[in-house]
Amino acid sequence: LAPIISHSIASNSRVKKVQRDDETRKMIHCIKVGISLVLVSLLYLLNPLFEQVGENAMWAIMTVVVMFEFSAGATLGKGFNRGLGTIIGGGLGCLAAVFAQSIGIGKVGNSIIVGASVFIFGSFATYLRLLPRIKKRYDYGVMIFLLTFNLIVVSGVRANVEVLDLARQRLLNIVMGFIVCVCVSLFVFPLWASDELHHSIVSRFHDLANIIQGCLGECTKIVSEKENQLCANFNVCKSVLNSKSKDESLVNFAKWEPWHGKFGYSYPWGRYLKIGEVLRELAAFILAVGRCLETSKEPMASLRESQLETCEAIKSKVACILRELGESMKQMRKCDAKAIILAQLKSAREDLNLIISTSKKVELEDSQVLAMASMVFLLKE
Amino acid sequence: LAPIISHSIASNSRVKKVQRDDETRKMIHCIKVGISLVLVSLLYLLNPLFEQVGENAMWAIMTVVVMFEFSAGATLGKGFNRGLGTIIGGGLGCLAAVFAQSIGIGKVGNSIIVGASVFIFGSFATYLRLLPRIKKRYDYGVMIFLLTFNLIVVSGVRANVEVLDLARQRLLNIVMGFIVCVCVSLFVFPLWASDELHHSIVSRFHDLANIIQGCLGECTKIVSEKENQLCANFNVCKSVLNSKSKDESLVNFAKWEPWHGKFGYSYPWGRYLKIGEVLRELAAFILAVGRCLETSKEPMASLRESQLETCEAIKSKVACILRELGESMKQMRKCDAKAIILAQLKSAREDLNLIISTSKKVELEDSQVLAMASMVFLLKE
Repeated sequence: LAPIISHSIASNSRVKKVQRDDETRKMIHCIKVGISLVLVSLLYLLNPLFEQVGENAMWAIMTVVVMFEFSAGATLGKGFNRGLGTIIGGGLGCLAAVFAQSIGIGKVGNSIIVGASVFIFGSFATYLRLLPRIKKRYDYGVMIFLLTFNLIVVSGVRANVEVLDLARQRLLNIVMGFIVCVCVSLFVFPLWASDELHHSIVSRFHDLANIIQGCLGECTKIVSEKENQLCANFNVCKSVLNSKSKDESLVNFAKWEPWHGKFGYSYPWGRYLKIGEVLRELAAFILAVGRCLETSKEPMASLRESQLETCEAIKSKVACILRELGESMKQMRKCDAKAIILAQLKSAREDLNLIISTSKKVELEDSQVLAMASMVFLLKE
Repeated sequence: LAPIISHSIASNSRVKKVQRDDETRKMIHCIKVGISLVLVSLLYLLNPLFEQVGENAMWAIMTVVVMFEFSAGATLGKGFNRGLGTIIGGGLGCLAAVFAQSIGIGKVGNSIIVGASVFIFGSFATYLRLLPRIKKRYDYGVMIFLLTFNLIVVSGVRANVEVLDLARQRLLNIVMGFIVCVCVSLFVFPLWASDELHHSIVSRFHDLANIIQGCLGECTKIVSEKENQLCANFNVCKSVLNSKSKDESLVNFAKWEPWHGKFGYSYPWGRYLKIGEVLRELAAFILAVGRCLETSKEPMASLRESQLETCEAIKSKVACILRELGESMKQMRKCDAKAIILAQLKSAREDLNLIISTSKKVELEDSQVLAMASMVFLLKE
């Protein structure tokens, strides 16, 4: 029992450390947002700057409020989307406005053309936003495109020749807001989405290892004690199961982030999604086996002592392998223990064959062998 | 085999119908966005209206672009957030601006106070946005609060007394945009998030029933044929597993929607989350058992004919129960078959006890009994 307890103490202190780190990062983010807002407000507050930009400084402030996200990657991605959307929307808007002015038969014709173009572009852009591939990465950009297009084309009816000038000034201000955001986000205590993704995957390895060692070993304990433990473990399993959308958005952000720390250019972020998928399957498995243990208590009692011991051994072996994998991922070294792990898995499997017809653990380990195999495969990057 | 085939044909045509409906709804949404944009552009295009609102009509257009979401609930929620954020942000912004003007020792002191308030409110609002409870429902509102506050307080430095007037006009325009959005969203072919949620949960019952009947019955089939089938089934399982965040946002939107169709006020949307949770666990279970079937082919062969038959019977019984539950949910009648279902589950369990020590199905059904029990419990609304 001693190693289990030491593990659970270690994992407790790990959880606390993670929470503290989380708090610190949130604080840093809040202060960074405050700083960027003050910087961009200087456009209004300082006389020489205000004379240059005028009322359009509003757009720079808006850009900062809307664009500043928690991680550097998210900020960059949103900024890129906003820039691109503004440029394309502004360009098309100007074209449409000029077209309406040159062709329109008087004021009414002009208005009709503008109205039609608003309807067509509005519907089309909305359709684009519903396509899954666009929605995933460029949703915000398309929205900004639509916004800019409408504002420009509609004010073109009133402002006559100033449209181009207006578009240019707004773009300039958005660029200023963008620069402030990016500088503060990248150079003042940067918070990387890639780090967060990396750590969350590594900690999932450890969590699952703890559950395998802890929960599934509870079959010999008293029922009441077991309940609480199981509940907590199920919650961890479920949080692993529900991690997909978070992973996907983090990978999305991580792709925007420039070279930093241990992550190079064209780092294979897609692999993280695959590893996450395998871990989710493993969690589904543990959840299922856990539920079985919870419902049916008798079959376990019918196991002989020697079988229980074998199960125990296999269990801790598997947990150990998981920890090893997590550790090697954390340090980003090639999982050089691959051969050893495969050998261990093979021996675990043989042990299992000995007790195959009686124990339920069979399935657990069988599928873990599968999961491990695919994981090892993924890790040979 | 006949019922299985007929079921799979039925489910195929169901899938096609769902896809067609989806396309139609997307089209409707796109056209609705186009209509609202044209309506709100009239503020600019028609002379009498433009004389009333002036350049501030820009804010109405922005509101429509940003606020119009796919479902009525999402639109209402966003609009509410935007309205509340604007009012609170505008109010506090005016206060801060007036405070800075009355206290500030000349221009410099004024600017310093404004800068400090921008920093403090910026950091504080950002902190609020990171809290999970706020993030879930009021993220957008807090962002709009911050935006409005900054714009108002900063332009207060320049515009002297006009701040209040500026705030009032912008608010008026946002309200106009809001009214256009809400009218088009609610009265022109409304798309309800509650309907979508309801249908997605019902169809998940049927999907899981099909998988249980289809995939887990494949154990007697040829291996190559089995592979494809299993793959497809795993994908369905995984999509059920990954449905949590979608469910949560739909429930969130559904809460905003007014009384309509069969859903009354204070409809228990939280129950949908619980049912979704149970279905996810069932999917995790099916996934786990499916993987086991995939890896270990021999144990199945060792089952005697009679046992296979029992398994088959239990399987179709469980699938039948699932369909029954889905159907009763679709028609929103109290699951009056509750007693019958419980009896069926009991008999299934007894059948299982007969073959308990040899078959793997044991676990599957055991946990399903559990899942069913909790589901029935949930359905007695």
